[in-house]
Amino acid sequence: MELPLVFDRYRAEIDAELRSALAKHQSPMYDMVRYHLGWIDEKGYPRQNSVGKALRPTLCLLACEATGGDWHKALPAAAAIELVHNFSLVQDDIQDNDPERHHRPTVWSIWGKPQAINAGTAMHVLASLTLLHLRERGISVEKQRRAQYLLNESCLRMMEGQYLDISYESRLDIGVSDYLDMIDKKTAALIGCSLETGALLGNDDESIIRAFRNLGRDMGIAFQIRDDILGIWGGKKETGKLLAGDIQRRKKSLPIVYALEKAEGEMRGELVKVYQDQVVDPEGVATVLRILEAVEAQLYAQGVAEEYRDRALAEIERIVHLPWARDSLEELAHFVVKRKF
Amino acid sequence: MELPLVFDRYRAEIDAELRSALAKHQSPMYDMVRYHLGWIDEKGYPRQNSVGKALRPTLCLLACEATGGDWHKALPAAAAIELVHNFSLVQDDIQDNDPERHHRPTVWSIWGKPQAINAGTAMHVLASLTLLHLRERGISVEKQRRAQYLLNESCLRMMEGQYLDISYESRLDIGVSDYLDMIDKKTAALIGCSLETGALLGNDDESIIRAFRNLGRDMGIAFQIRDDILGIWGGKKETGKLLAGDIQRRKKSLPIVYALEKAEGEMRGELVKVYQDQVVDPEGVATVLRILEAVEAQLYAQGVAEEYRDRALAEIERIVHLPWARDSLEELAHFVVKRKF
Repeated sequence: MELPLVFDRYRAEIDAELRSALAKHQSPMYDMVRYHLGWIDEKGYPRQNSVGKALRPTLCLLACEATGGDWHKALPAAAAIELVHNFSLVQDDIQDNDPERHHRPTVWSIWGKPQAINAGTAMHVLASLTLLHLRERGISVEKQRRAQYLLNESCLRMMEGQYLDISYESRLDIGVSDYLDMIDKKTAALIGCSLETGALLGNDDESIIRAFRNLGRDMGIAFQIRDDILGIWGGKKETGKLLAGDIQRRKKSLPIVYALEKAEGEMRGELVKVYQDQVVDPEGVATVLRILEAVEAQLYAQGVAEEYRDRALAEIERIVHLPWARDSLEELAHFVVKRKF
Repeated sequence: MELPLVFDRYRAEIDAELRSALAKHQSPMYDMVRYHLGWIDEKGYPRQNSVGKALRPTLCLLACEATGGDWHKALPAAAAIELVHNFSLVQDDIQDNDPERHHRPTVWSIWGKPQAINAGTAMHVLASLTLLHLRERGISVEKQRRAQYLLNESCLRMMEGQYLDISYESRLDIGVSDYLDMIDKKTAALIGCSLETGALLGNDDESIIRAFRNLGRDMGIAFQIRDDILGIWGGKKETGKLLAGDIQRRKKSLPIVYALEKAEGEMRGELVKVYQDQVVDPEGVATVLRILEAVEAQLYAQGVAEEYRDRALAEIERIVHLPWARDSLEELAHFVVKRKF
């Protein structure tokens, strides 16, 4: 499966903006950041390609263009959002004990958790510093302040979602609405922020800015549900992640939450029994997979993701009038629920 | 030993500003933040007193007054700096595996490391949001941007220092100048930022603003060296920390660095042998304490701290003309090298 073409439109300049955010920092601490971003290997040798799709900065710049703005002016915001996203990945890997991401060892698994915490925080601070450069691109003081406020608020939501995600691990009483509340914070808030910030920097119409945030929230929820599906049925080859790792860690992802609601009698008993232990063993994983199949949890989850995609498509049709931008956003909405990585 | 009276001057309003930064946040995640700040106990019941001296916000507000400003306008900066300091403490406890601080269990030791990481990051984001309130206190856009820049840059320095501190643990080739470079970043950068930001919000004279930063750096270095002394010879009763915990963790604090430079022959051999292991056992701690005494490392370290205090006193005399403010700053300069907690 190919990436939609719109990712190519901004990639080089997003990359340049990110590199300039790191350019003047020499302490070896920043090599952990450069490693995470895929610019160097663990020994410090340059690598050819960055890792990651850069979905969030692409959405930000596309929203800026779609609302009539000059996307170059929004580059500091796009880079800041990508840095916030990546700092959250470094922390997430620490919290989840994940040894690999994108087929590479995670930062903590090379440098240890204490240093990885420093690298994550440094990336977070670099995001704030990068956002301050909006002024030099001719963005008004008021809009720059608002962009800072938006990014900070989204970051708080993201932490609240991460808090819920972890606290759900040891619970079995999580329903679909608890789940949706959690991913709205953990994932959709920052994707919503990407589109809202792009629209804010592209135009002055408050109703349009709000509509882009809602569009981002819907796309974000669809994105996370697809992530949940890949977290259980995605092969390691595609995602670079542990096969069925989400089951082992007792993550209350949508297929599991659905099975907990749906499974009855003996089947429910089996599910509950597997989740009694702190870590689910391979036999337990097999049991869970069998129950997920019996209740058709993948079909259900994919259906919910597509509902949110359809809401996104309707919103795009309503608010985006530039034909190529509309096509690109539609393609992205389809991409988030079809992607295999 | 009593706290200097100037701490009372601002305490109530610093506390109010911090509480307002948390006021609208309801997720249970923020209870970890409230617990760390000493407002509630681990079950959520209110406690009488906040913990911590609030040295940094006090310095910030005092610098604002000393340079002729209205300290009330600087409160968002003071609170933001205190939040940054406290987020760094939460992270530091995680990184160092410290089970106690201020005679209370640390956040991670109650909620686990993954959730403590979320709490620390949330505190960091709350600091950025709080700083945005400078505008509502009538601070100009330019100064507010500069305050954000200063706080972010200091935070990066702090992370670089923390990176060095951890990487020094496994090394024996650390000299006094490496050590001073590390604490200048780890500790003095944020204390320098406190005074610089206060002076920035209090007056427009660039040479005065710069002088306050340098004063803060000197006080910060003196403060950290005193911290090192307390980290080895301070009783658990006063500091709420593990006795000689810094030795157990192989921290390259100034007394140790000095001993590594000073000890020769058999003594150096013993010291090197103790530090071969990942964690120093009680017998090793006793050996190190004996060697530190032999080379008079405490006397040396206290002497260096007092040199920096004297530099601070000279700077205070040169730049602070308001008599009560000068007295207060002098008292603080003496306090940082005499304190027992």
